[in-house]
Amino acid sequence: MIVVRTDVRALLFDVFGTCVDWRGSIIREGEHLSRTRALDVDWAAFADAWRAMYQPSMELVRSGSRPWTILDVLHRESLDELLTQYGLENFEESCVDHLNRVWHRLDPWPDTVAGLCALKERYVIAPLSNGNVALLVNMAKRSGLPWDVILGAEVARHYKPQPEAYLAAARLLALEPGQCMMVAAHNSDLFAARECGFKTAFVRRPTEHGSGQTIDLRAESDWDVVVSGFTELAEEMNGRQDSDQNRPEPE
Amino acid sequence: MIVVRTDVRALLFDVFGTCVDWRGSIIREGEHLSRTRALDVDWAAFADAWRAMYQPSMELVRSGSRPWTILDVLHRESLDELLTQYGLENFEESCVDHLNRVWHRLDPWPDTVAGLCALKERYVIAPLSNGNVALLVNMAKRSGLPWDVILGAEVARHYKPQPEAYLAAARLLALEPGQCMMVAAHNSDLFAARECGFKTAFVRRPTEHGSGQTIDLRAESDWDVVVSGFTELAEEMNGRQDSDQNRPEPE
Repeated sequence: MIVVRTDVRALLFDVFGTCVDWRGSIIREGEHLSRTRALDVDWAAFADAWRAMYQPSMELVRSGSRPWTILDVLHRESLDELLTQYGLENFEESCVDHLNRVWHRLDPWPDTVAGLCALKERYVIAPLSNGNVALLVNMAKRSGLPWDVILGAEVARHYKPQPEAYLAAARLLALEPGQCMMVAAHNSDLFAARECGFKTAFVRRPTEHGSGQTIDLRAESDWDVVVSGFTELAEEMNGRQDSDQNRPEPE
Repeated sequence: MIVVRTDVRALLFDVFGTCVDWRGSIIREGEHLSRTRALDVDWAAFADAWRAMYQPSMELVRSGSRPWTILDVLHRESLDELLTQYGLENFEESCVDHLNRVWHRLDPWPDTVAGLCALKERYVIAPLSNGNVALLVNMAKRSGLPWDVILGAEVARHYKPQPEAYLAAARLLALEPGQCMMVAAHNSDLFAARECGFKTAFVRRPTEHGSGQTIDLRAESDWDVVVSGFTELAEEMNGRQDSDQNRPEPE
C-alpha cells in the first residue's frame, strides 16, 4: 500500500453505483410518484430498464454515429421511450423533465460523504463520470459531495471507457496517469483506467443492482486496492496511523 | 436587487485580483527567495513586469497565432524571459518551476473564503478564470476556496474576454447566460460577460496593483451589483434578512 499512497495525488471516482445508489433512488422517487398519481408501476423494473438503455445510448456517441451529446439528453430520450412502453406518455412536460432529473438527485451510499471528506484532506478528489457537469454539480450540492473539481465525459467530450475520458482528467489536473487512481464498483471501468496507466481501487457495492445482483460482486483482477466502502478506502489511502510520512509535499 | 437574486443560479468569479492578491503573494515569495539566496531584486517591479506579459501571451492564442496553450506554460515562457532580463537565468530548473507555480499559491484577500462559503449556501460558485484547471485546484486546496466546480479558459479552450469562455461556463452548468453572474474586479471582464447575457457584479480591489493603483478603482458602468468585498457581496446576494422567499426551488 505504501507505494500506492506515495504516488497517488488524485482519486477519480465513478459515480453511478460507486458513489450513489441510482436504483434505490429511482425506486423511491417512482413510488412517491405512484402514490401522488395513483399509478401501478414496478419501479425496480423501470429503473433497470432505464439503466439498460444507458450503454447503447452512449455507444452511438462513442462510435461517432451521432455528435457529442450529454447524458441528460440521452437519459431523456430513453425515458420518453420507456414512458411510452409503460403507457405513461401523457405525463406533462414539467413532470417528465423532473423525472429525468432524478439522476441529479441520487442519494449517496451511507459511507460516501464521510469517506470523501477524509480523502479530500490528502488527495484531489473528483468525479470521473459519464454524467454531465450540471448533473454532477446539482448532485454534489444536494448531498454535500465535497469534490475539488468536476471531471468526466463532458469535459473530455468522450464517454468512458474510451481512453480519452481518463487521459483528459489526468491532463486537466496536470498529473501523470500513474498519479491518478480510478475508484469504481465496476471491474470494466478499472480495466479501462489501468490500460491508461491509472492506479485502481475496486469498491464492492453488492446491492447496486438490488438483492439479486450477479455482476461486479468481486474484484476480477489484482487491483491496487480492494475495499468494501469509502470508509475503508480512506483508512487504506490515508494510512491507518494517519502518519504524515507519506503526505505529498505542499507546493 | 430582488430581480437579480431570483434569476441568478450561479456566480462565476474572476480569480487573479478578484479572489486572490497575485501581486502581494509574488512579492512575499520573491522576498523570501531574496533572503535565502542573497538576491537584490525589486519584486514589486518583477511582479508587475510578469503580469504585463499576461495579456500579450494570451493574445497569441486568442488570435489563433498559436494553438491552445494553458496559462502555466504561458507564465513559464514569460518567466524565463524575465529571469534573463534580471540576470537570474542560472536558477536551477526545480527553482524556476517552483517560482512559476507561485500562481498556484496566491493568497486570497481576507474576505474571500468567508464570502464564498456564505454564497455557496445559495448559489453554484465557480472560478471563471484564465488560469488552468490544475492551477485553480491547487490554489483552492491550499486556501480552502470552496468551489463547486472549476470552470474557465481551459475547459472552454478560449481565453477571456472571448465570448466562448463565458458561454462555455453557462452551457456546462446547463444555465441560461442570464442565470449566471460574473464577479470581477475588472470592468473589462464585466463588459465582455454582459455582452454574453451574464449578470454582473463589480468588486472594488483598490490595491490589486499596489498603493498607486490607477485603474478599475470604480465601476465604469451600471453593473447589477457593486460592492467592496465578498462579505458585502454575500449580504447583497443572500439577502440581508436571509429570507427564504427568493431561494431557488430545490430540484
